[in-house]
Amino acid sequence: QIILNEIPSNGLLLSKYFNKTTLEICEGQALDKEFENNHAINREMYLDMINKKTGSLLGASAALPIIYNGGSKELISVYEQFGRNLGIGFQIHDDLLEITADAKTMGKSLGSDIFEGKQTIMVILARESYPNEWKELLYYSDNKELMENIYLFFKENNILQEARLISESYFKTSLNYLKKLDGIKIEELVKLVNLIEKRTY
Amino acid sequence: QIILNEIPSNGLLLSKYFNKTTLEICEGQALDKEFENNHAINREMYLDMINKKTGSLLGASAALPIIYNGGSKELISVYEQFGRNLGIGFQIHDDLLEITADAKTMGKSLGSDIFEGKQTIMVILARESYPNEWKELLYYSDNKELMENIYLFFKENNILQEARLISESYFKTSLNYLKKLDGIKIEELVKLVNLIEKRTY
Repeated sequence: QIILNEIPSNGLLLSKYFNKTTLEICEGQALDKEFENNHAINREMYLDMINKKTGSLLGASAALPIIYNGGSKELISVYEQFGRNLGIGFQIHDDLLEITADAKTMGKSLGSDIFEGKQTIMVILARESYPNEWKELLYYSDNKELMENIYLFFKENNILQEARLISESYFKTSLNYLKKLDGIKIEELVKLVNLIEKRTY
Repeated sequence: QIILNEIPSNGLLLSKYFNKTTLEICEGQALDKEFENNHAINREMYLDMINKKTGSLLGASAALPIIYNGGSKELISVYEQFGRNLGIGFQIHDDLLEITADAKTMGKSLGSDIFEGKQTIMVILARESYPNEWKELLYYSDNKELMENIYLFFKENNILQEARLISESYFKTSLNYLKKLDGIKIEELVKLVNLIEKRTY
């Protein structure tokens, strides 16, 4: 009886939620492409982009079962924020792994993001903190040594470490949202965050 | 120990899966826009578009937890197909509800899809089965009576019923994928399909 009463509002909510999510993912995807080779992109614009591109997908994946089950707005929001923060952490971690992981294990040529002019968090941090040194590095390295030089530059200037801290802060926020879900079985979700945070490729 | 061994392949799989899903959703969204007012769109093109736009989002939502948990390729695929078929059924049902539900309860002006030239399954069925009658209906109705005329046209020519059957066939396929998940608790997922299938707005 209760379930029958819940159908209408769920249907409308689901419909709106799908549309909202689809548009947000596509906006994020479009921004990602637009950002390529654009040196005016700052950290906030990058975080907004990956929130839209990857955060919204994981946010929706986490929230959809709660919407189906007729959960409250507050509960839906907690699950969505859990997923969004996990997605943002994941994306930064992914940018990091592209630089640090072995080419073969990542399954694509190491640093291909760099050659495509992708504005990853490391590129933004390097450009903003060391504008002249970064410009020189790109200008004076030939293609063969560019990746190695960039890796050393990120490492020597603590940019890898800084990116890792930003990524970790999102994983931590993600876990904090889980803590709000008092009384719900959250062990599986905690395991999930740890799994994603600790992955090496 | 087993969990630690599973991290690497999961990470790479997740990364690829996110990218694939994002691109597919955006392709579907772009096709949906491109299809507007295009009278060459047939049933197969429409189903391909909603599979990409809505099917991929629900497919990913269903498959992601299985990917996290290191499920086999076969298991991931079953969950994804469950979600995709549910999403396609949902989208057709949504098109139907836009025509049949009360304007207030749908939260947008009744039949706004029609005025935007959206190629819904009902429009395609009407155009393909009754090309001349459909053309005349659109040509000779003024805006005020257009929606009422279209509703009656769909009803009298069994187009609403035909669309409902197509939608039901996808819900049924969705349930059939669930039946493959022998030994897994599927009651909740069956409840979900029924909930979505039976919603009235």
